[in-house]
Formats: sequence, structure tokens, C-alpha cells
Amino acid sequence: MKYDLEKDNLISICKTADIRELDALCSDIREFLVEKVSVTGGHLASNLGIVELSVALMRVFDSPKDKIIYDVGHQSYVHKILTGRADRFDTLRQYKGLSGFPKFRESDHDAYDTGHSSTSISAACGMAAARDISGEDYNVVAVIGDGSITSGIVYEALNNIGARKLKMMIVLNDNGMSISHNVGAMSKYLNKIRSSDKYNSAKLSVKSALGNIPFLGNPIQKSLRNSKEKIKYSVLSDEGHLIEALGIKYFGPVDGYNIQDMEDIFTAASKYDGPTLIHVHTKKGKGYHFAEMYPRKFHGIGPFDINTGKEKNKSSSRSFSEVFGNKIANLADSDKKIVAITAAMGTATGLTSFWERHEERYFDVGIAEEHAVVFAAGLAKSGFKPIVVIYSSFLQRSFDYIIEDIALQNLHVIFAIDRAGLVGADGETHHGQFDISYLNMVPGMTILAPADGNQLEEMLDFAIDMDGPVAIRYPRGSSEGNHLRIKPFKGFNNVISTGTDITILAVGSMLDEAIKTAAILRERGLDVGITNVCVVKPMDSTWSDISSKLIVTMEDNVQSGGFGEAFTSAHSNSKYDILNIAIPDMFVEQGSVSELRSECMIDAQSASERILSYFERKA
Amino acid sequence: MKYDLEKDNLISICKTADIRELDALCSDIREFLVEKVSVTGGHLASNLGIVELSVALMRVFDSPKDKIIYDVGHQSYVHKILTGRADRFDTLRQYKGLSGFPKFRESDHDAYDTGHSSTSISAACGMAAARDISGEDYNVVAVIGDGSITSGIVYEALNNIGARKLKMMIVLNDNGMSISHNVGAMSKYLNKIRSSDKYNSAKLSVKSALGNIPFLGNPIQKSLRNSKEKIKYSVLSDEGHLIEALGIKYFGPVDGYNIQDMEDIFTAASKYDGPTLIHVHTKKGKGYHFAEMYPRKFHGIGPFDINTGKEKNKSSSRSFSEVFGNKIANLADSDKKIVAITAAMGTATGLTSFWERHEERYFDVGIAEEHAVVFAAGLAKSGFKPIVVIYSSFLQRSFDYIIEDIALQNLHVIFAIDRAGLVGADGETHHGQFDISYLNMVPGMTILAPADGNQLEEMLDFAIDMDGPVAIRYPRGSSEGNHLRIKPFKGFNNVISTGTDITILAVGSMLDEAIKTAAILRERGLDVGITNVCVVKPMDSTWSDISSKLIVTMEDNVQSGGFGEAFTSAHSNSKYDILNIAIPDMFVEQGSVSELRSECMIDAQSASERILSYFERKA
Repeated sequence: MKYDLEKDNLISICKTADIRELDALCSDIREFLVEKVSVTGGHLASNLGIVELSVALMRVFDSPKDKIIYDVGHQSYVHKILTGRADRFDTLRQYKGLSGFPKFRESDHDAYDTGHSSTSISAACGMAAARDISGEDYNVVAVIGDGSITSGIVYEALNNIGARKLKMMIVLNDNGMSISHNVGAMSKYLNKIRSSDKYNSAKLSVKSALGNIPFLGNPIQKSLRNSKEKIKYSVLSDEGHLIEALGIKYFGPVDGYNIQDMEDIFTAASKYDGPTLIHVHTKKGKGYHFAEMYPRKFHGIGPFDINTGKEKNKSSSRSFSEVFGNKIANLADSDKKIVAITAAMGTATGLTSFWERHEERYFDVGIAEEHAVVFAAGLAKSGFKPIVVIYSSFLQRSFDYIIEDIALQNLHVIFAIDRAGLVGADGETHHGQFDISYLNMVPGMTILAPADGNQLEEMLDFAIDMDGPVAIRYPRGSSEGNHLRIKPFKGFNNVISTGTDITILAVGSMLDEAIKTAAILRERGLDVGITNVCVVKPMDSTWSDISSKLIVTMEDNVQSGGFGEAFTSAHSNSKYDILNIAIPDMFVEQGSVSELRSECMIDAQSASERILSYFERKA
Repeated sequence: MKYDLEKDNLISICKTADIRELDALCSDIREFLVEKVSVTGGHLASNLGIVELSVALMRVFDSPKDKIIYDVGHQSYVHKILTGRADRFDTLRQYKGLSGFPKFRESDHDAYDTGHSSTSISAACGMAAARDISGEDYNVVAVIGDGSITSGIVYEALNNIGARKLKMMIVLNDNGMSISHNVGAMSKYLNKIRSSDKYNSAKLSVKSALGNIPFLGNPIQKSLRNSKEKIKYSVLSDEGHLIEALGIKYFGPVDGYNIQDMEDIFTAASKYDGPTLIHVHTKKGKGYHFAEMYPRKFHGIGPFDINTGKEKNKSSSRSFSEVFGNKIANLADSDKKIVAITAAMGTATGLTSFWERHEERYFDVGIAEEHAVVFAAGLAKSGFKPIVVIYSSFLQRSFDYIIEDIALQNLHVIFAIDRAGLVGADGETHHGQFDISYLNMVPGMTILAPADGNQLEEMLDFAIDMDGPVAIRYPRGSSEGNHLRIKPFKGFNNVISTGTDITILAVGSMLDEAIKTAAILRERGLDVGITNVCVVKPMDSTWSDISSKLIVTMEDNVQSGGFGEAFTSAHSNSKYDILNIAIPDMFVEQGSVSELRSECMIDAQSASERILSYFERKA
């Protein structure tokens, strides 16, 4: 390596080094990324794609005075390296380690914390407005991928920026990932621009092109003079029409691996007194053979062998996602009314076989969770049985539509909610800790939670034949519970054992923690029963009759509005006392699921201690 | 009147009558609308604007086989009249009466229930996909206003429709209302089209224009032959570029008061084998002098005098919205960091004076609740104090962003949540019955609820000086509580009286019901205390010490996840029993607030009966 990424002042190098030296820096960063992520796991392909772009941004802009916002944020690794955090990459995405997403608490170079897609333009819009009201002078730059621009909030933001003529820049990091799945007209449109002749052969005179830009005078022409011939972009060409119709000045496309071209175009755009969009063409996985070949696999990957690209320690047990995907594809073989809808998460949620076998009934709407739900409502209204497959934390975006479009019309839509509960390394923004709460309050909603893969299959059979909206929430990871085969699901909760001292009501896959908790308590001489709560809503009417002294609810959802609170409110004047074990009122950082359960005090150790202390107080 | 709107088969008349006769029908409908709404109140201006358009849709399309979806739905009155519901207009928006929104339960001509804006295109998209999978053959038509197209879900839907080339029609009912407030680039763009010379003077040959449309042959030319010279539209002209770039065929603009032109253009568009957008130019309030002059006043209006346009029985007491608007404008006089953000509800939420006095700090982002919140996050990140002013039920759309953008970064954003609790005549989709629940679960959120206007002012003073996110929820209507002046708000709850038998914890403006409840109970010899819950979250730590036998929580929010459940869970093992009085797990229809409180059993009469029955069971 030419540079010491952990010790050199990389910001200063970005700003002052010769362009050729920066190529060496980029090469070093790539090597570092592959090496580090091969050990810790993480988002690799998107970061490899954006190395030169991140360097060019650091060269042109003056962070943290200028604000650079990385949309979604899993592609902020290079930015983290450039801003003095290379020495923490051994702890990437680990408990108490470096986050895989921008975090202001790590560095004031992280201008805005992201995690869920498509917020960067709105946030940048707020910062630009703040700057203008205060009469200050700095640049605000949102860096957003072509996949993220399918979300509605992007359009809401563009609509505002265009009308207000706010001075800010949108760097469109177009790696064409949204195109292969062909999820939207916007992707097609971008593809048309990228593949147009003009990109490959444009010899537009910079001077004449810039001459067409209102409010733009000599300074830019001057700044561009030295590279006049090299720059390929089509200011005000036909291709920018869609963007320009919204009042936003379009620059591009520009090659995301040519730092000089990017420097020129960013400099030009930064001098324009209004909103601009700079279209940068990149490639996922750039520079690492296996990541270029398999960009989806290397999007988010566990530890892998650098020489073979093979993932290490890949679990052999079937994940809930796999079980779900296989089962729903089978169900759809015989039930022609089943349709599946996903929001850009088809592979990760296990829908590949469904797509292969039932393409005409498979809908990937792109990152558009709101449309996904109302689109499902239209299908259900027309007699189909839509399965909406979305991660728990992303489905938060559909909250209003679940209430007003699905539940109010009592439509039979099945929500397959993957990544419920604590998810691990992705951290704060990705835990599915709210879904029971935000669904419990929805009138007419049924909420199911399987303990393992077998039960998930049985629940899908059951849910397909129900009426009205049904949510099935299941966690990330292995579907093989640490318990004997439990009774088949027939729409009821599973009484596994009874106990005179304590009954633990364990929601879904928390059954494993409950079994461990009971074991600890039984060693202390307590008589403990366990019921597996498969049906979170509606509330089981037989629970009034439980005769234990204490009922303990256990769930990997927040306390507020969760199963435990609902149970307590419904049984507050019963003869037994109640203890709710749930995620407390806090955001949960990254780590392994067991570390995080311990931090949240919902693991067996914490649960048993809390229960024992209850009995000590009573004694 | 020429027609008997209550008895004639209006669908058949629409389909078979001569165009000139339809003008008479439209005139009759207008007269009927003004007369009926002058008595019941309702959404008048938008319905007056859409009379001919609704008739033309009924003429061309074969409802209910063809699906006509009215976005938002408050402009579906004409459609209701045409489909046999004129005889129920005396009960419009009243308890158990005709809904002011489309309801499938009223008629199968209401293809999809709406209420919240901007869902029609996604729903239509689902129906069109269902039709194609099933191999059926019918039209799907979404009728959407220019205000509603600022919402992100519209773009998500357009993006999908364009890519999938689904055959469906979007009728853009462009009454220019979004333009006066200049909320978005899309509005500006539409305005440019509407005011372009081509609209006024276009003499495009229909034949040559249609010649450019692929997949479109003689049938349309034939259907248009008779009116060739009259039609003013610009198929494939420059003006449609933005829409066409997304893969949607643009037709228009067409005069929304020329039924023949609309018939021709709808017929032409319906023969195109792909998605189309037909741009129809209308005027809010059309045909009734006062509504044309004051379209905002007549958007949603109470009973009024037809001859003077003056609203009857207008309450003289100050509404919560007025108190809020006045106070926040005053606060902003001295605190230059206060900015106000609304989503197309500036007037209704009382922000007019703020806008007049602090225009540079006033942001109406259009119907874009998601962007509103993240935009606020950007402002807060930059040191401003954003007040986000959105109705309770519409803020449901911002749920994910409140968690991930505001709370996770612990930003000091104040949510002024108007129309919390039951709102009355707007019904199911507009009640603010979920906000305590969906905010209670958000880590770090403070939730305040004023009992009256004085307290709202004090809470705003208090909230401005806090840290982190704060929500203040207040109801529709009068801010003058039926109680003596309560203690000034200093961040604590208000113990109004104590009682050995019962303590009622009444959230915000439910104080009035609590006072009435206590009066009834005291007559029965019970010793009742009342605490006004001003701070819903965080939970008051002194409540563990209350020494009454029974604690009753009262709130105009759903039970699930509400204040009562949180209280019960926190105090489940206390010495007192607990009774939660809250909105049950159901959707609440329209009616007066007192009728609805009674139906939900949260009024004083129901509450006192439930409490007495508790004491009888105990005795």
C-alpha cells in the first residue's frame, strides 16, 4: 500500500494530491475494504463501486462545513475511511464497534444518520433551507443510488426543491442495480440515458453547453477550461428532460471512475444557484472480481475467502426466509389466486422460486413500500390473495395504508413480515422491534408469530384460508428452534406445559428463551409452565383462567403497545400478577442477537433474574 | 328541475341522452348539491367542479364492471347522485347517514374506498394487474386531483404502471388548487401546460396526432371523426414529456365542462393498450358564485345561506387550531429559529398568520407528509426548531420517519397534531384515534395533550424550550373546555381533586368527560378524584402512590398501545385496580363527536356505568 489509511490525513490528501496519486489511494482503499469486510462481513459491493466518487466528493467539498449525506448509508464505508475511522474497521458492525451506517456520534463528517432508504434528498432540502434562512454559505450534497430513487419521498423532495429553487446537489450514484429487475419506469428512463450514444460519443463544447444555463456565467467556464475536451456530459440535452421538467438542473452522465471528470462536474454544479442532479455512472463491486460478478451476493455478505469469494461459516440450517419462500411457491402451484408482492427484496425474502415458477403473479415494485400495500389492496379487492413480503422495519412506511386501505376495507391481504425482532449487525435502523405494536392497534388485524419453520408453514396454510388482513412475523436467521417438535398450528396457542408458580407466555420464536428461562427457574424450585403464543392478536380468551401466581410475557418487540401490554390491560384485575418482558423504550445498537437480547434484558438470564427478584420481593 | 334525481335512472340517462340534455342534467345536479350541502354541510367546491367530468365518465364507462376510483373521495358526491343515492343526501355525513366518501358498503359503484389522499393510482394498478392475470376485460380509471399528485405514493405507482405498461387510465382533475400555494415543481409544470398557447389555440389535426401513437389504429380515429375540429389536445406534444418519460401516454388538456370533448378523449384513451393520463381542466366551485369566489372556504363547509354564501351557526369560540396558529406566530416573532412546516393544510391548521408574518420560515410542502418530517429533520439538524403541523390521521404516513429520522437522531422537532381524537362528520378515515399509540412506542418521544386552549399555549412555550422530539395532540373544534381555569402547565400533570374510591386520569381534553363522569359518580356516593393527564409520555412516577381503590384512565385514542395500556402495564401489580376507558378495537363511522363518544363508550354516561358496574361486582 502506498498510503497508511489508519494514520495519514486522507482528507488533506484528497484535496491536494495529484489525480494520479488519488488513483493509488483508491486502489489502497479497495484492497483495505476487501480485506476488512472478508473478516467482519458487511456491505461490500456498493462500497467498492463508490471509492472514486467518495474521494472526488471529499476533494471538491469541504466537509463537515459542506454537508455530504449518504442515502441508506451502507455505502458510507469509504467516507468513513477518508474521515479517520479506518482504524476501527476490525470492529465493523460488531457490538460496540463501528457502525455500518453513517452516525453523527462517530464523526461530524456524517452529516445525517441514514439507514432506511431515500431520505437523503429531503434531509438535504431541510439543510439547504436552514442555510438560506440563516444567510450562511455552504454546499449540501445528497448521494443516492438508482435503487433508492423509486421511493415516493424522493419525488416529494424533488417536487419541493424544484419549486423552491433551493441550491443543493443530488449525486445520483447509478450502478444500474435497479435495472436488472426492471422495477420501474424511472429505471428504464435512466438506462436509456446511460446507454445513449451521447454518453459514449458526446463531444459537446463545454462552452456552448454552459452558455445555455441561466444564471451561470464565466466562473464555471473558467473552472472547466482545462478539461474542456475531456468532459462528457450533456447539460440541457434531451436526456435530462424528466429531471429538468421538475425544475432541477441535470448534469451528466459522468464516469464514476474518472476523478478529474467528477471534480470538474461537481465544481460546475456547485456554482449553479439552484438544485442540480449529477448523474454518475458506477458499477457495483468494482475492482474485486467476485463482487463484480455477483454484486447481489456481495451486497451484504458474511465473512468470506478473498481468493475464492466463498462465504465462510454459512449456516446449513434453513432460514425462516427460505422456509417461507419455498412454502409460498408451493401454495401458489395449486392456488392460482395467490400473488406475491415485494419491495426490492425478492431474493433476501426468499421469493426466488416463486418468481421462477409464477412470474406472472410476482410483483417487485422497487423500494416503494407504500405503493406495495395499496397495490395489494387493489389485487385483493379483485379477488386475489396478495402476500406482501416486507421486512418489519421497512413495513413501518406502510403503516397508514395498512390501516386505511387494507384494514378499513377488511381485505384479505397476508403480510409476511421478515426480520421481526432483533436483527443483529445492521443495528438501530433495521431491528423489527415495533411491528407487534403498530399492528396490534389496527382493527381487524390478525397477528401470528411462528416459533420455527414448521409452524411458519402451517401458519401460511392457515392464513391463506382466512378472511381479512393477517400478519405473520418471523425473525432473521435459522428456522430451527431449540425445542422438540411443537404441536401443529390450527389457529390456537400452544400450551406446552403448566405450572402453579409461573406461566410464561412466549411470543413466536421467543419460545427458545422461555424454555431456557424455565430451566433456570425450575432449578430454583419453581413450578413453571410455558405457553407458546402463536396468535398475538386476537387475544386468547382462555388466558383469564390461568391459575399460576405470576404470568410472564416474553416478546422481542417493544413493551409499548406490544403483546405484554395488551395482555396486562386485558387481565389487569385478575388474581395473578403480571410481568412483561419486552424490549425497553430505547433504540438498540448493533451486535449479535444474543448480545442484544442480553442488553435489552429479554434473554433467559435476564428474564430469570427478574422473575426471581419478583418472588423475593413477594416472599 | 328537468330530472328527478332521486327517481330517474341517471346512469341510463348519462349513457343515452343527447349531449345537450346532459347539460340540463348537470345543471340540475349543481342546484341539488348547493341546496343539500347548504343544509348538511360538506365538501362543496370540489363536487361542483367535477359535475360534467363525473357525467362523462358514467357515459363512457360501464360501472361497476369498469372500475372508477375517486382519489381522496370527498369529490364523489356527483358519482353518488348518479348511482342512485340522491335520496340519502339529507343524511350526508350524519350519524348512520350517507358517507361523504366512497364506500363499497353503500354501492358497488364505489370500486374502492378512499379518504386519505393519493392512493387511487396504486389501487387501480392492483385492479388492472388482477384483470390481466385473470384474462378479463374492463377499464380501470383513477380520478385524481392536482393537489393529490404531490404525494410520493403517486410517483411509486406511476413508476410501476409505466414499467409494466398496464392498461389503465388516470384522469387528472386539474383545478389548479395546488398552484396558488405554489407547493411543488409538478404544479408549476402543470400550470405551464394549462396556460400554454397550445391549450388555447391548438388546431392539431386529430388524425395526424393520433398517427403518432403506436399500437393505436383506426378505431380511435373513427370514434373521433365527428368532433375532429373541436378537440383541443396535444397528444405527444412537448408538454406531456414528463409523464411520457415515465412510459405513460399523455392526453390533453381537455375542457372539463365540455362533455363531448371528454367523451371523445376518454374513448380514445380507453382504446390505447397501456397506461394513459388524461389531463382535464376544471374549476373548483363551478356554477355557484360564492364557491367560485371562495373555493377554499367552500372546500369543506358547514351549513350556509345559499343567497349570501354565509356560514350558519358558526361557533364564536376559538378553535384549538386558531389558538395554535396565533400562539406559534407570536412565538416566532421573538424566536427566529422557529420554522413551520405543513402538508397542504396551512389554513385549516391555523397557520395563516404565521405565513403572513414569517413567510421565509413557512413551508407548505404539499400533500407530502413523509417529506415534511424528513425536511424538518434537516432543519433541526441545522439548529432550527421545526414545528410540523399535520392532522393526527395523516401523520400516520410519517410513522417510519418519526422513528428513524427524528427520534433516532433525538432531534428537537415539535409535532403539532391537530384533529386528534374523534373528528365527527368526516368519519372513519379522519379520526385521530391512533396517535398516542403510534407515538408512545417511539423512544425518546414526549407526548403532551392540552385540556384547553390556554394549556395549548403553555405547552407550546414549554415545548419550544425542550430537547428532543415533542408531540402535542389536540382535538378539532372549540378550545374552551367546560371547566374552571386549570393550573398553568409547567411540565407536570394536574391533580384537580383526590378521591379515596376512584381517581380518574383523563388525557387532555377528555377532562370535560371526566368532570361529568365524576359528577354522576359523586351523586351515587363515591369519592372521586380527577387528574388531568397533560403529559402522556413519559409516565408520571408519582402515580404509583395513588391511594384510591380504582384508577380509571380516559382517553379518545384506541386502547391498544394507548395511555391506558401503558399505565396498566406500568402499574399492573399495584394495590389499586385499573379500568381503561378508550376507543375499542374498531373503526368509528361518522357522526357528531358526542354521538361517536357514546358509540365508543368513552362518554361520561358510558364511563360512569362501567365504573358503577365495577363497584357492584366488587361489592
